[in-house]
Amino acid sequence: MMSRPVRVTIQSEQETARIDSFEQSEVEDFLRKRYRGVRALVTGGLGFIGSNLAKRLVSLGAAVVVVDSLEANTGGNRANLKGHEDQIEIRELDLRRCGEVPGMFEGIQVVFNLAGRVSHIDSMVDPLLDLGSNVEAQVVLLESCRRLAPDARIVFASTRQIYGRPMSLPVNEDHPLQPVDVNGIHKMAAEAYHTLYHRVHGLKTVSLRLTNTYGPGMRIKDARLTFLGIWLRRAIEGEAFEVWGGRQQRDLTYVDDAVNAFLLAGSHPGAEGQIFNIGGGAPVTLAELAGLLIGVKGGGRYEVIEFPPERLPIDIGNFFADDSRFCDLTGWRRYTPLADGLAKTLAYYQSRLKDYV
Amino acid sequence: MMSRPVRVTIQSEQETARIDSFEQSEVEDFLRKRYRGVRALVTGGLGFIGSNLAKRLVSLGAAVVVVDSLEANTGGNRANLKGHEDQIEIRELDLRRCGEVPGMFEGIQVVFNLAGRVSHIDSMVDPLLDLGSNVEAQVVLLESCRRLAPDARIVFASTRQIYGRPMSLPVNEDHPLQPVDVNGIHKMAAEAYHTLYHRVHGLKTVSLRLTNTYGPGMRIKDARLTFLGIWLRRAIEGEAFEVWGGRQQRDLTYVDDAVNAFLLAGSHPGAEGQIFNIGGGAPVTLAELAGLLIGVKGGGRYEVIEFPPERLPIDIGNFFADDSRFCDLTGWRRYTPLADGLAKTLAYYQSRLKDYV
Repeated sequence: MMSRPVRVTIQSEQETARIDSFEQSEVEDFLRKRYRGVRALVTGGLGFIGSNLAKRLVSLGAAVVVVDSLEANTGGNRANLKGHEDQIEIRELDLRRCGEVPGMFEGIQVVFNLAGRVSHIDSMVDPLLDLGSNVEAQVVLLESCRRLAPDARIVFASTRQIYGRPMSLPVNEDHPLQPVDVNGIHKMAAEAYHTLYHRVHGLKTVSLRLTNTYGPGMRIKDARLTFLGIWLRRAIEGEAFEVWGGRQQRDLTYVDDAVNAFLLAGSHPGAEGQIFNIGGGAPVTLAELAGLLIGVKGGGRYEVIEFPPERLPIDIGNFFADDSRFCDLTGWRRYTPLADGLAKTLAYYQSRLKDYV
Repeated sequence: MMSRPVRVTIQSEQETARIDSFEQSEVEDFLRKRYRGVRALVTGGLGFIGSNLAKRLVSLGAAVVVVDSLEANTGGNRANLKGHEDQIEIRELDLRRCGEVPGMFEGIQVVFNLAGRVSHIDSMVDPLLDLGSNVEAQVVLLESCRRLAPDARIVFASTRQIYGRPMSLPVNEDHPLQPVDVNGIHKMAAEAYHTLYHRVHGLKTVSLRLTNTYGPGMRIKDARLTFLGIWLRRAIEGEAFEVWGGRQQRDLTYVDDAVNAFLLAGSHPGAEGQIFNIGGGAPVTLAELAGLLIGVKGGGRYEVIEFPPERLPIDIGNFFADDSRFCDLTGWRRYTPLADGLAKTLAYYQSRLKDYV
């Protein structure tokens, strides 16, 4: 175990070259035209990505219904839509009951389906709880869509977790699915339902396999959903955070960029029935990321500790994705360099820490 | 739609060359040594393959406990173990309750896990029913094994259905998993649990991806579980049976050979944690199979009808497997040529039709 002070110079990232404000405004125009007046359902809409997506939809002129179970130990948090309660219809509801609510699917043209559990550890401790949220609830949602919104586009938040330990890098969509934890098995099943319901029942489903996404609204209370959440909390509280191992590579996506991906997947005519990686940022090691976070924060400390041996069987090692299939089809780009994204995230939590801890 | 009389000359099959009575007796000796005095649990043990396996285990000197829910529209049928009730402990029980029965796992050294639903159509009509039987029940079983029989070998009856429509033939175990129906998704998840519980929790699991298996004890009441079941019933009743399409290729395994595969998978030291195809017989088209059945029966009639268009989305087209991985490891062979297997099956049902219709 080492404890080390860190000095970091933030260099311009490889990614910076991809930023192009002209393109960004073009995408904005496209999305505004596409979503103005559209009625959208966001499942898991009080969660991290879901809430950012819901707010963005409102800003694009959409009418938004949010469903969230707010179950313990998920990413759902009312603070994520604080101040937006009059713009967004929020329903606290288990997704397994969604078909029973009168009128909920009425006029829905697009469903952003982000409900579910994402904790790898929790899924190993209580597989049936994870099964209910990530599989049973998805069957119910898709059956409800068949019945009540058969023409809606449905964008499912899948995950790179279903690949398991990469056999080669970067990982593209043809990589075998060999999930290493129960959560990964259930997400694989849920994604397979979406593909099946497209092929057999004609539902307009798209699945996005997300890599590590970060930004305002993520759970920072503990390390349950991401390692980065607890790093942010500790950094803001002025405490050292733990880096397990540190050499593992990851590609990170800032939430605004992930939200753009959902919006493009929800509107691009060529995306139906398909599966796409959303990842592909320049990979960083966890130690590099820790150093960058402290550099952006302007100080702090982390400890590198040995990766817990009991977690090795469900660790996926290095991971970064090839998302060229989605970029090529939709023109999606990640506009937010890692340092900027971390800075925005820190700024968000510095003023709202009490809502998230 | 055509109706045609059929004359068939049964020719010696390619497979016949693989029969070797010396090898067969060697396998028998090996299995007898391995299973004498062993306490085995067979889930789905009143079903088709499960009941044949249970009887064979008794003949090898094992103590056998059978669990079966006998739910409607599954393969479970008390007639399958008629006359063996004093040799086999039979428990009518939903697998989801298996951990609650005092002593049921006591001393269990091997679990043959064949419980579940196999109807593709039923799974599309009632996905949640299929989920409960094929996924939830499997989690409960594996968690029970972790707790109550952590050293038992567990052999799971997986299925070629999880491959979906073959991208190339014959299909080996590295073929991508792209199930085309809900049942396939659930079986894929259940198999993934077995692999995961081996890797993470050290359970000694083996999965066998079965192709079409046939023989005494299969459901012949209707076409719910296999097309061949209803063919056999109609042939015995002297009625024409329907062949849908007819050009699709399949590889078939006689149940005694499948049972041998389970017994080898349950005892071979090198099989732990692995996944194997059990298939690989010489492929036949459905029309060839229909002709062979009538030839063996000594008469009869079938009608070729167009493959129902509404079923095409969940049809897998041609399928035959490469099972050399299992053959090479364990020395498994299929000893029963198709014509012999059909003859034995017809003979079985001719005297017991009333128990199965």
